[in-house]
Amino acid sequence: MPINPNAAIEITAFRWVPEFAQGVVRDLRARWALEEAGLDYKVRLLGQERPTDYIKEQPFDQVPCFSDGEVRIFESGAIVQYIGEKSEALLPRDPQGKYRAIQWTYAALNSVEPAILNLLLIDVFFAGEEWARLRRPGAEDFAKVKLKRVSDWLGDKEWLEGDRFTIGDLIMVTTFRFLRHTDLIAGFANLDAFVKRGEARPAFQRALADQLATFREHQPEGVPA
Amino acid sequence: MPINPNAAIEITAFRWVPEFAQGVVRDLRARWALEEAGLDYKVRLLGQERPTDYIKEQPFDQVPCFSDGEVRIFESGAIVQYIGEKSEALLPRDPQGKYRAIQWTYAALNSVEPAILNLLLIDVFFAGEEWARLRRPGAEDFAKVKLKRVSDWLGDKEWLEGDRFTIGDLIMVTTFRFLRHTDLIAGFANLDAFVKRGEARPAFQRALADQLATFREHQPEGVPA
Repeated sequence: MPINPNAAIEITAFRWVPEFAQGVVRDLRARWALEEAGLDYKVRLLGQERPTDYIKEQPFDQVPCFSDGEVRIFESGAIVQYIGEKSEALLPRDPQGKYRAIQWTYAALNSVEPAILNLLLIDVFFAGEEWARLRRPGAEDFAKVKLKRVSDWLGDKEWLEGDRFTIGDLIMVTTFRFLRHTDLIAGFANLDAFVKRGEARPAFQRALADQLATFREHQPEGVPA
Repeated sequence: MPINPNAAIEITAFRWVPEFAQGVVRDLRARWALEEAGLDYKVRLLGQERPTDYIKEQPFDQVPCFSDGEVRIFESGAIVQYIGEKSEALLPRDPQGKYRAIQWTYAALNSVEPAILNLLLIDVFFAGEEWARLRRPGAEDFAKVKLKRVSDWLGDKEWLEGDRFTIGDLIMVTTFRFLRHTDLIAGFANLDAFVKRGEARPAFQRALADQLATFREHQPEGVPA
């Protein structure tokens, strides 16, 4: 099991988050990549009140940060790509295969995620606000356009670039999971199957279980689990 | 001059775009990186009606695509990173320096750009809609929070990681330029100076001039320049 208190690799994660964020906080991406690569890691847990100097590690005050004694970085996309460099299971070695995977990592984070997170914000953070009510249909349509673009590309392929799982698939699957409170992914049969294939991987299952176990362990009193 | 009709490297760009997009369309990022690296390139121009099979190259129907005979990719972040691998002037070779730069590329595209583009959408595409009027103050506040995070990090450094310009700075400067219709960047003196330092680089000046020259050449009749 890659969680190992003596590991050289350390990531940061939250001790506890509200239910809507459990199973999607971005340390999940780093955990999943580390599990796929078979690399041991330890976790430094943070409360919602972060230490005042955490911002010197992570200027946006988010998780995860990553360090392995040689490299200290933030941003889940960069972390997953760095882990990919350590493991051919995540990132092909030939230039075309490598950069096709990196391209999908950027595509998930820049061409897809903003439309999806916008919908999550409207539904969770701004629910009840008038602008959110007025904007929601257009925001949903925009997210659907993005999903259709990826669905058309994916076709009947197993992964975004064919039969080989890469960091691009890992980031895209975790991006699509931000829509789990809706039925939008289910509206695209091939995307639905793609997400389920990703979630069925033993490395994903271990990563998710470890993130959720931490939240259970630190469940605040008086807050329903 | 890196534009060369016989170059091995080809990028795609638009023949013409409306004024609000001139000088910010994302092929500018690829052009700038190629100029910094001193790599010759040619440009395949596309109309607003793209060829029907363009989507097989670029699933989101956007520019730029990149090919050099060895690698064919889309997404400006991936393209700029790939060009960085060819030129130490853009991407340090030591693992920590390299991944700090890559981290900022992802940060610009995922932690900063969505908040900035949201404001551009509200001001340009959805101006006049009721939800946009109601949402604008909150959207501006959110963009300012992101700018403050980067400003606090940058401090009095020349570039995001110190005295060395990297792909992270290139992507961050071009991201900030999406706010040029506002005075938000001017509200942070160090970010304002950072953008101006980026824009003053000869490679940026050539890239911008070449993008704008194409638009001038293809200015539609009856549309004011």
